[in-house]
Amino acid sequence: MKKVLILGSTGSIGVNALNVIRKFPDKFKVTGLTVNSNISVLKEQIEEFNPEFVVVKDQNKADELAKSIRSKTEVLFGNPGLIEAAQSRDFDILIGAVVGFAGLIPTLEAIKRGKRIALANKETLVVAGEIVTRLVAENGSEIIPVDSEHSAIYQCLIGENLKEVEKLILTASGGPFLNKEKSFFDNATVDEALNHPNWKMGSKITIDSATMMNKGLEVIEAHWLFGLPFDKIDVVIHPQSIIHSMVQFVDGSIKAQLGLPDMKLPIQYALSFPERFENDFMRTNLPLINNLTFFEPDFDKFECLKLAYQVLETGGTAPCILNAANEVAVDKFLKGLIKFSDIPKFINKALNKIENHSNPDIETIIECDKLTRKFVNTLN
Amino acid sequence: MKKVLILGSTGSIGVNALNVIRKFPDKFKVTGLTVNSNISVLKEQIEEFNPEFVVVKDQNKADELAKSIRSKTEVLFGNPGLIEAAQSRDFDILIGAVVGFAGLIPTLEAIKRGKRIALANKETLVVAGEIVTRLVAENGSEIIPVDSEHSAIYQCLIGENLKEVEKLILTASGGPFLNKEKSFFDNATVDEALNHPNWKMGSKITIDSATMMNKGLEVIEAHWLFGLPFDKIDVVIHPQSIIHSMVQFVDGSIKAQLGLPDMKLPIQYALSFPERFENDFMRTNLPLINNLTFFEPDFDKFECLKLAYQVLETGGTAPCILNAANEVAVDKFLKGLIKFSDIPKFINKALNKIENHSNPDIETIIECDKLTRKFVNTLN
Repeated sequence: MKKVLILGSTGSIGVNALNVIRKFPDKFKVTGLTVNSNISVLKEQIEEFNPEFVVVKDQNKADELAKSIRSKTEVLFGNPGLIEAAQSRDFDILIGAVVGFAGLIPTLEAIKRGKRIALANKETLVVAGEIVTRLVAENGSEIIPVDSEHSAIYQCLIGENLKEVEKLILTASGGPFLNKEKSFFDNATVDEALNHPNWKMGSKITIDSATMMNKGLEVIEAHWLFGLPFDKIDVVIHPQSIIHSMVQFVDGSIKAQLGLPDMKLPIQYALSFPERFENDFMRTNLPLINNLTFFEPDFDKFECLKLAYQVLETGGTAPCILNAANEVAVDKFLKGLIKFSDIPKFINKALNKIENHSNPDIETIIECDKLTRKFVNTLN
Repeated sequence: MKKVLILGSTGSIGVNALNVIRKFPDKFKVTGLTVNSNISVLKEQIEEFNPEFVVVKDQNKADELAKSIRSKTEVLFGNPGLIEAAQSRDFDILIGAVVGFAGLIPTLEAIKRGKRIALANKETLVVAGEIVTRLVAENGSEIIPVDSEHSAIYQCLIGENLKEVEKLILTASGGPFLNKEKSFFDNATVDEALNHPNWKMGSKITIDSATMMNKGLEVIEAHWLFGLPFDKIDVVIHPQSIIHSMVQFVDGSIKAQLGLPDMKLPIQYALSFPERFENDFMRTNLPLINNLTFFEPDFDKFECLKLAYQVLETGGTAPCILNAANEVAVDKFLKGLIKFSDIPKFINKALNKIENHSNPDIETIIECDKLTRKFVNTLN
């Protein structure tokens, strides 16, 4: 019986993680759940899963929740609550399902305790990949990726020798704007950008899919998870999202992992590894799907993808700047304050403005993140 | 440095195996080569690879060869020569590259010595799967499949638990007659049947691809290699032959192995396993290939595939009868003596005529093979 702490239990990944855990009551026990402010959904989750504690980022909401629940579940709040949960509460697996920079510190705390991290929060590796991978090695922790692409690569590498990998091939749906001209990006609406063809996800990651920044962040994530340089990580457009990613070995052989676009599968794998648990999720029927297609990505059209490769090559705090600038720009776009085509422009401006530091420690990263957000907030 | 004995060195697999070995002079040494009668090609192979011995099935040809070579290579002949080679000569890996029943006995001899078998001769497992798998386990031998489909499954299973496999999915190109009507099979010519769209192979296996008996034999081979029952081995038509086969696990995840249709890759893998050796073979470019398609097979049109599933379910000597009847029928078709549509008819007649024995020993299998050949030779 594994005890599970979910950071971000009311988001898309968090809800899917609970959908998985619900199927295996004899394998997993929810010990903790954390949310930003969505206490109405959290209340239902508390009633069903009866966790030992929850953390609500917003203190007023935490108070409101504490008054309204009948269970013995303890209610913590704010960043101190989050850190306390990761630092000292009892769990075996942390599911990092929050979006953005916010997932970094509690994840680092769990790594320092040697816990398994089921990592959906790609920003943790994007901004602090070097620190995270060092701490994982030093503390006997392990990261099992939850992103479908990295889960695919992880599965393809089981039993293989990393030194015999020639390249990683990340597949990308291409998002809602795959077949649009670049000129369309000036007038793309929020609704259009949120209309992802395959995956139902939160709004930030869905916009990242439309800009293909999501794939760029995944390239950086893959670099840290699997230790390959940027020029050995390819992106291939595969609009059906059935092949979730591939590994090409030095003998030319390629291994791929396939499945329907359903996050429950990689979440379950990150929880059950090294075992696989039988489930009743819908199976992939290739004759029914009939056709899988593949294209080269257009780096000129999807500038965010190109920028991600560039910051990975640059190193230092450049990925942190890219990530922070992107978070602010996407937020502004979602609020209708800027154009879709402004997103890469703002990131570019931040990369040109904010000083890059090599081999940053965690304080430098936090400072860089703050500076970048402040700068991009001034842009319009 | 691994010493290699190739059974059938002038056939398609044998020549490709030498193409692989030529690339790795510091990894592999050819110690022995065997052929039926093609001594002109064998002579060139002797000059290049300087083996310790060769075996020529035809005694006259063996004499002719012995007189014409200048090297110290010893020339053996006939079945006794083949068996002596497998039984007592020095080698680490036997590449079983002959076609049909003829590969069985020398392969068994090498298994008894605990050697690695790089197995392209699928008939060995089809007719004597139970005996072969038992002897492999008893003698610490290992079979690494060379068929691209089984090599794909083998690669997908590395590091995985066989008990967590839900099903195997063998891909099939569908051969040259994929899009023909069944009525066409009465008048299909030898040239049409030999015109395979993807793979350049020997004539027997190419006809087996046209009838889809090849895929049927592979289903039986997969059963013995991986221990799954017939109803957990599916066939999916995939005309591009890029995905070489797949494994579906109990959690619904599918792993696939991909590559260009080139036998050098699975041959090299069977030689290098558990390592992968870097090579300069042409790489798979999915955006260039662009499109992979999948269909259900038509069991009504491809009766041979249906028959193969039936004999696997029946067991005993039924697979031996199917194989022997198929070998004779294909030979007759290649000689222009019978129609393409007669092949499944003849096999059906043999299965109805020849008595089935359960748990056969090797003598029973040899007798069954002879009886079946004799019977099918009387048909027209």
